[in-house]
Amino acid sequence: MDKTIVQFNCSGTATGKMRNELSVTMAQPFAGGPWELATDEGSSHGGDTTAPPPLALFVAGLTASLMTQLRAFAKRTGVELTRLDTEVRMKWNWAAKDKGDETAPEAFEIDVLIESPASTAVIAALIEASKRGCFIEQTLGQRNTIRHRLKTEDGWIDV
Amino acid sequence: MDKTIVQFNCSGTATGKMRNELSVTMAQPFAGGPWELATDEGSSHGGDTTAPPPLALFVAGLTASLMTQLRAFAKRTGVELTRLDTEVRMKWNWAAKDKGDETAPEAFEIDVLIESPASTAVIAALIEASKRGCFIEQTLGQRNTIRHRLKTEDGWIDV
Repeated sequence: MDKTIVQFNCSGTATGKMRNELSVTMAQPFAGGPWELATDEGSSHGGDTTAPPPLALFVAGLTASLMTQLRAFAKRTGVELTRLDTEVRMKWNWAAKDKGDETAPEAFEIDVLIESPASTAVIAALIEASKRGCFIEQTLGQRNTIRHRLKTEDGWIDV
Repeated sequence: MDKTIVQFNCSGTATGKMRNELSVTMAQPFAGGPWELATDEGSSHGGDTTAPPPLALFVAGLTASLMTQLRAFAKRTGVELTRLDTEVRMKWNWAAKDKGDETAPEAFEIDVLIESPASTAVIAALIEASKRGCFIEQTLGQRNTIRHRLKTEDGWIDV
C-alpha cells in the first residue's frame, strides 16, 4: 500500500475592516499554487462585503471535494456520468453569550443528482467509495485536534 | 441564551473535465449571497487548472473563520490588534488502493502572529474564546455524521 502525506498551507493576513487575504499552497507530495483567496463579512458584522464569508469557502470546499472524487473514481472504474449536480445544506447552532459566541454543528446533508447509464447499485457504490476517498468528509467524520501556537517575544507558546 | 440556526447551502455543478461551479448562499438566520466559487484540478488529475483545488477552499475557510472570530471578539472586548497574521498547515495521510483511495487527517496546526498593546495572557484568552466561537474549529473538533441521498426514479434514497 502506497502511503503519502498530502499537505496544504495557508498564509492569512487581516486587511480592511474584516477582510482576510489568504494565500494557499500545496506543500506535499508536490508543490502547487499559490492560490489567492479572500473572505469578508457583510456590514452587519462590520465588513465591506468585498468577498465571500469564511463559511462559504468551507461549504464549497466540502461540496467540491466529494464531486471531484466522484468524477475521479467514475473515470477510474469506467462508470459514465453524463451529469453530476449536488445540493448541500450545512447547519450550525449558534448561541450569543456575554463572553463570546458558542457554536456547534447541527446537520450536514449532501444530495447527489447523477445522470448515468449505470445502475443505481453501481452509482451507490461509487458514492460510497468517494466518501472514503474524500479528504474533507473523512476529516469531518472524526474528532480532530488542532494545535494552536502564539508568537511571543520569548518564542512560540501553545494556546 | 439566544440560540439560532446558521445555515449555508451550496449548489454544485460539474463542468469541464474536473471543474465544479459552486453557488453558495446563506439560508438562515438571514439571506446572504449567492457567492460564486469554482474548483478545478491540475493536469496530473485530469483537470485544466482553471481554479483552486477543493482543499484550498477548505484550508482558506478554516484559516479565515478563526481570523474573523479573533477580530470580532477583539473589537467586542476592547482588545486592540494592530496586526494579525496566521500560518496554517493541514496534513492528511493518503493511500492509493485498488478499489479507490483512502484518506485520514494527520495534523492540523495554526500559528497566530499578533501585534497588540495587550498582554500575552489577554491575547491567549482572546484566541481561546475565538476557538469556541469558530464554526469550523468546533466542527472539526467533533465526529460529524453527513447524510447522503441519491436521487433515483423512485425518489431519494439514502446512500
